[in-house]
Amino acid sequence: MRIGELSRRTGVPVPTIKYYVREGLLPQGELSSPNQAQYDEVHERRLRLIRALLEVGGLKVAAIAEVLGAVDDPERPLHKVLGAATHRLGGPDATDDDAEAAAAQTAVEDLISRRGWRADPSNNAAGDLARALAALNRVGHADFVELLDAYADAAEQVARADLGYVGRRVAVEDLVESVVIGTVLGEAAFNAMRRLAHVDASARLYGDGAAGAAGATGVS
Amino acid sequence: MRIGELSRRTGVPVPTIKYYVREGLLPQGELSSPNQAQYDEVHERRLRLIRALLEVGGLKVAAIAEVLGAVDDPERPLHKVLGAATHRLGGPDATDDDAEAAAAQTAVEDLISRRGWRADPSNNAAGDLARALAALNRVGHADFVELLDAYADAAEQVARADLGYVGRRVAVEDLVESVVIGTVLGEAAFNAMRRLAHVDASARLYGDGAAGAAGATGVS
Repeated sequence: MRIGELSRRTGVPVPTIKYYVREGLLPQGELSSPNQAQYDEVHERRLRLIRALLEVGGLKVAAIAEVLGAVDDPERPLHKVLGAATHRLGGPDATDDDAEAAAAQTAVEDLISRRGWRADPSNNAAGDLARALAALNRVGHADFVELLDAYADAAEQVARADLGYVGRRVAVEDLVESVVIGTVLGEAAFNAMRRLAHVDASARLYGDGAAGAAGATGVS
Repeated sequence: MRIGELSRRTGVPVPTIKYYVREGLLPQGELSSPNQAQYDEVHERRLRLIRALLEVGGLKVAAIAEVLGAVDDPERPLHKVLGAATHRLGGPDATDDDAEAAAAQTAVEDLISRRGWRADPSNNAAGDLARALAALNRVGHADFVELLDAYADAAEQVARADLGYVGRRVAVEDLVESVVIGTVLGEAAFNAMRRLAHVDASARLYGDGAAGAAGATGVS
C-alpha cells in the first residue's frame, strides 16, 4: 500500500509516519519508484505498536527507538533497554548516596531474601524500587516500607498472570514484542486499576456520599 | 535560611530553585532585603516533593505545578488533576471512537459491575484503563482482558494497603500531600516490583540458568 493508505488505516498523519521513518522507529517502505514507497502489514503493525507505546505507555520517541531496536535485534539485551525505557527516572541525582538511599537498598535486599525471589539485588528493577523507597523516605514517608509485603503479594499475583498469559497466548516469534507490550501497556492498565480500586476502597471506608474524602484519599 | 543553604540541604542547584519559583512550583522566599530572600522548612519540604515527583514519579514540570496548585487550594479538584498528571496519556487520538475503544469501554463497565466496585465508569481511572485495553487490542492482544480479574484482585489488595497506611500514618493536615505522594511514588514502587516479580516468576518457569528466557519474558 502507499503511505496515504497506511495513514488512513492507522489514523497516523503522513508527516508523522515520515518522521518515524527518519527517526528509525519504522522501517522504510520498499521503493516502487524513486518517489514512491510501498508499505505492508508489517509496517501497519509496527505503527500501531509505536502509537500504543507513545500514547498509552508514555514512552518518549527516543526510548521507543531503543526498545524497537532491541525487538529487532536478538543480540541486544531487551531487559536492560526495557528497564531504562519504562522506569522514567532521570539520571542519578546528587542525593543518591545519602542515608535514605542506603536504607532503601537494604530494605529491597531484605525483601528479595524474605520473599525468596530469584532476582539479583543489582537488577534494574530492584534499583528502581530502591529509588522509589528512598524518595518516599525523603518526603517523610519512611513508614511506606510497611506496605512492601502487601505490594509484593500483589506483584507476584500479577506476574504469575502475565507469565501464564505469555505461555498460553503468545507465539514464539511474537515473544519479544509481546513482552514489550505487556510490560508497558500492562503497567498502564494496572496503574489505572489501582486508582480505580482506590475510589472503591475510599467509598467503602468513608461512604458513597463522602465526595471530598473520596477525592482526597481515593483519587479518580 | 538563604537560597544557598536551601540548595546545600536539598542538593538542588540554585538556578534550578529559582526556576521552580518562577514556574510557581515553589513559593517565593520572604524578602529580607531587596536582593535576598529567606527560605524555611516549608520550602525545603516542598522542594524535596518536587524532586521526588520529577525524578521518581516521572511527572513533567507543568503537571507538578497543576498538582501542587491543587494541594495548596482545597477548592481545586485534586482527584482530577492527579488523574491527568499521572496517566501520561496524550490527547484522545484519531482512533478513539473505533470498535476497540467501544469493546474496551464495555469490558471496563463489566469489570466494575462484576467486582461490585463503587466507582463510576465515567471516572478518569476507568477511562485510562479502557484506553490501555483498547491499545492492547489494537496491537493484537485482545485476550489481555482475561487477566483483568487477576489484576483487579491485586489492585484491590494494594488499594486496601494504601488506604490502611493513610488512615494509620497520616496526619489530617498532610492528607492531600500524602495522597499525591502515595499515588505517584507508590505507582513507581509497584511498577518496579512487578518487573522484579517477573524476573522471579520467569526464573521459576524457565530455570535460573535460562538467562535468555529470563531476559525475554522476565524483564529486569
